[in-house]
Amino acid sequence: MRYHAIGAAPGIAYGRAFNLPQWEYELPDRIIDAAQLGQEMQRLYEGISISKSEIEELKQEISPYFGEDELRIFDAHIAILEDPQFMKEVQNVILQQYKVAEVAVKEVMDRFSRLFEQLEDQVMQDRSLDIRDVGNRLLKHLIGTMNVFEPPADEPYIIVARELTPSQLAHLNPQNLIGIVIMASSANSHTAIMARALGIPCVVGLEGELLAPIEDGDQIIIDGDRGLIDVNPDEETLAKYEQEREEYRREQLRLSTISDLPASTIDGVQVKLLANIGFNLEIKSANIRHAEGIGLYRTEFEYMDRSTWPTEEQLYETYRSMIERLQGRPFVIRTLDIGADKRLPYFDLPDEDNPSLGLRAIRFSLAYPEIFRTQLRAIVRASLHGPIKVMYPFIASVEEVREANRLLDEVRTQLAAQLGREIPPLKTGIMVEIPAAGTIIDLLADEVEFFSIGTNDLVQYILAADRMNTRVSPVYDPYHPAVIRVFRQIAEAAQQAGKTVSVCGELAGVPDYLPVWLGLGITRLSMAPPAILTVKKRVRSLSADRCRELVRDLFTCKTSEEIKAKIAEFNRLIEWES
Amino acid sequence: MRYHAIGAAPGIAYGRAFNLPQWEYELPDRIIDAAQLGQEMQRLYEGISISKSEIEELKQEISPYFGEDELRIFDAHIAILEDPQFMKEVQNVILQQYKVAEVAVKEVMDRFSRLFEQLEDQVMQDRSLDIRDVGNRLLKHLIGTMNVFEPPADEPYIIVARELTPSQLAHLNPQNLIGIVIMASSANSHTAIMARALGIPCVVGLEGELLAPIEDGDQIIIDGDRGLIDVNPDEETLAKYEQEREEYRREQLRLSTISDLPASTIDGVQVKLLANIGFNLEIKSANIRHAEGIGLYRTEFEYMDRSTWPTEEQLYETYRSMIERLQGRPFVIRTLDIGADKRLPYFDLPDEDNPSLGLRAIRFSLAYPEIFRTQLRAIVRASLHGPIKVMYPFIASVEEVREANRLLDEVRTQLAAQLGREIPPLKTGIMVEIPAAGTIIDLLADEVEFFSIGTNDLVQYILAADRMNTRVSPVYDPYHPAVIRVFRQIAEAAQQAGKTVSVCGELAGVPDYLPVWLGLGITRLSMAPPAILTVKKRVRSLSADRCRELVRDLFTCKTSEEIKAKIAEFNRLIEWES
Repeated sequence: MRYHAIGAAPGIAYGRAFNLPQWEYELPDRIIDAAQLGQEMQRLYEGISISKSEIEELKQEISPYFGEDELRIFDAHIAILEDPQFMKEVQNVILQQYKVAEVAVKEVMDRFSRLFEQLEDQVMQDRSLDIRDVGNRLLKHLIGTMNVFEPPADEPYIIVARELTPSQLAHLNPQNLIGIVIMASSANSHTAIMARALGIPCVVGLEGELLAPIEDGDQIIIDGDRGLIDVNPDEETLAKYEQEREEYRREQLRLSTISDLPASTIDGVQVKLLANIGFNLEIKSANIRHAEGIGLYRTEFEYMDRSTWPTEEQLYETYRSMIERLQGRPFVIRTLDIGADKRLPYFDLPDEDNPSLGLRAIRFSLAYPEIFRTQLRAIVRASLHGPIKVMYPFIASVEEVREANRLLDEVRTQLAAQLGREIPPLKTGIMVEIPAAGTIIDLLADEVEFFSIGTNDLVQYILAADRMNTRVSPVYDPYHPAVIRVFRQIAEAAQQAGKTVSVCGELAGVPDYLPVWLGLGITRLSMAPPAILTVKKRVRSLSADRCRELVRDLFTCKTSEEIKAKIAEFNRLIEWES
Repeated sequence: MRYHAIGAAPGIAYGRAFNLPQWEYELPDRIIDAAQLGQEMQRLYEGISISKSEIEELKQEISPYFGEDELRIFDAHIAILEDPQFMKEVQNVILQQYKVAEVAVKEVMDRFSRLFEQLEDQVMQDRSLDIRDVGNRLLKHLIGTMNVFEPPADEPYIIVARELTPSQLAHLNPQNLIGIVIMASSANSHTAIMARALGIPCVVGLEGELLAPIEDGDQIIIDGDRGLIDVNPDEETLAKYEQEREEYRREQLRLSTISDLPASTIDGVQVKLLANIGFNLEIKSANIRHAEGIGLYRTEFEYMDRSTWPTEEQLYETYRSMIERLQGRPFVIRTLDIGADKRLPYFDLPDEDNPSLGLRAIRFSLAYPEIFRTQLRAIVRASLHGPIKVMYPFIASVEEVREANRLLDEVRTQLAAQLGREIPPLKTGIMVEIPAAGTIIDLLADEVEFFSIGTNDLVQYILAADRMNTRVSPVYDPYHPAVIRVFRQIAEAAQQAGKTVSVCGELAGVPDYLPVWLGLGITRLSMAPPAILTVKKRVRSLSADRCRELVRDLFTCKTSEEIKAKIAEFNRLIEWES
């Protein structure tokens, strides 16, 4: 039986299923009298205190397996236990309604978690799980039964759960845990983030569909790239997956043979392949070594996985440790890209009818200059340890770049004075992801050193189609003639102005799209690290000259069907030749 | 004291305030027994029946003052009384909880209206008011006290209300009612629509701010264009408004002198000035006679003010009556532009995270071809009565135009066969309001006869800034260099392809922007009817040659500040010369 879900952490796993037991309990149905209030409050405080130290212990226990980013999740959980609003409400239920502590905790936990669940925002919805994680822990201490689940001790297994909280995941031994299936949850939940960091394949989002049909001991395959689950697969499916896994292994082996060869086309054009990353942790991963540097560091995750604003010192430490690990390779830091679908748990961004057309990224930074200055100071300080470039996201006008550059300069001058040393100016660039920016590359070129095309957003605005909205996914089309014209216009204007232009959207890592980039003369591509060797292999099979021919040919097409057909034909020919 | 609110119907009014009395009542606090259930149901049915005939009477009574569109609101109210879901719930409360009819109606009304209120969509929120309008009418009959408010009988007055339902407005004598202030509500509520149709200045959206401070008999000024309210203004303010009103009158007089003169520049370039309208009613308004035709008829309002889909026959009657009234002048019908902020009360469009980037306009029509075909059939049939052109909104690709044209042709062929006569093909065109369309005008030119630039949306997508979102209003900027470049690109490509290009967004009716259009060679402008004479006057003061010079000059600017300054200087010079 095959189920379609959402892939949350890549990779394929095959093994025995282990169902996370549901925790069942009964709440006492009694009202206390006034004399017992003090005792009940005492029980509440003790429960909180035990829960807190337990979370601390857990954090220590699992720290060898996780990075700093992930461990911070536990701090967020402690913060819930210390949240004055939450605790006040629990106390009120006890003191005003004479209910026992466990009932009060349950009621408030349910209310808060429902509140978060109802928010449209996925990040907030995921917080609801955190609240229940913490609330249940507290409940268990109050009720006094703490049933611990025991996963198979000496055999690989795939955990199957309705919900899996970060602390539950932390409890599972990462050495035997080879895969994760979560019915509820999204690809952006804390648990999914942890799974990706641990490199454990994970599939999520099967709400109400599947839980029963998977029994303990069932053999299952999960495919974290495609979001598939096969329960007790037949021989054929199993063989197919075995073969795929084998092919994948072989392909990785083949790719590893080119890891030290240059990324240059058969007619000698050098291509720079860089990495997009979002976590400090990723810079330690094996794939990163194939990149010639970091072309896009998404700094917002550093902000999203906290319960308060990061300090300048914290940011500086992160940036410094990263640039040092890069050992002289270039490091492009994109300033905070918050807003739209990226929210902060501790900062209440007003709701917007169309958040993708709202106050986000550089607009946010310029609207809250103190927050921006803190980040810029951390970046400038880190730049003393290696070659850092600053990239501004979501630029629409010359004025915005000037203002951002002015703040950067101001911060740099101040820091130089404070440190009593000279700090050389940082190179700055912009993301080209708003049509307006693409239209005025020549004007922007006077203000910055480099451009990077953010294809994900740019395509979305060129076509006025939300790329996350499945109802318009046929409209969101990177092969649309207008899209390719805009790419050409940007490439030509940047080249004319003598500025570097790169691509850092998802399209940079799509091997089949590569001929378009090379044909447009774009030879700097930044992508997810696992794609780098695959793209390099493709680069080495292409002739830049023939790519240019192809692109000229594309401009005779009227529809994306024709464009797709021509590119596909070109790629088939290349494959056949090599 | 001056208050800032939202202008919902244009114009200035000055006069005595009259507060709409709040209706106060007490609900009986008793439970009935099983024997009384039958009697209680009987009371409910009688109340409904009286309420229905009352609404019918009211509709008859006020029909001389309103158009068909507005009268349809009353049908929507009757539909609520006939809604099986609503009535089932009321009956359930009576039958299962043994409550009296008025309590049951109140509970269900509150629940339903809260439900609608909580929806993010403004159209749906406004429906909540309709439900309360109907529910209160029913309540009054059940409770048995129907206190009627008596506005001043023989003196002009401005009504001030927390909420004003369409039936309350209908109750007020339009001859003495010179202005409307509604605390709650939005510019799109049924009441606001009626105010606009009646030509009564209206200001809305002061929730929680103002009601108390306005006493019966206070003198107030309301400014429905700027959304201002002045309560007991001082002599100076009053004099200023008197003067403004006087100036407005004089300007109208001056403008009327050019109403029969051609709209041509001093160097002899003819400009076509057309009207944008949204209601059948508007075609009867005085201003329409200054237009050389309808450049944009927004057909969606015909769909939005109903409780079910309009039939082909209803649409046909509307379109036919309009084209006949135009007596040979051109009539551009834009097909249904539903979605985003325009919702239908009877069709449940799924929520989208970014509705402006979602399934709207032509995307909707192509996704629901049966709905589209019904409209196309009505248009084709009406085209037998005069020169109708069809305009597709929100086109992003050649494929979409081809598909829309294919459906139009299919419908025309079928109709021709049914009617046993030839129907000549209709001219088609597209709104250029998505950046992609602007980029491929040359490709689209093979499929259509004309282009019309929808500046409102186009600017929004070029800059990725929601024009309704005040947090990014500085980013939404029609003077941005990229915006003017895109306009030029569209104008040049259309002219090169030998196709007509017009403008029908708000910028078409902004006199100060006019030199840009003429400088780009765009001489077809469609705007709100009241703007036509003002723009004509400006046209007659301009030289197209000098506008072209100006535009060339604009392309040397790097920022919108510079562009605004150059245009302002140009306009000052023109004014000074004339």
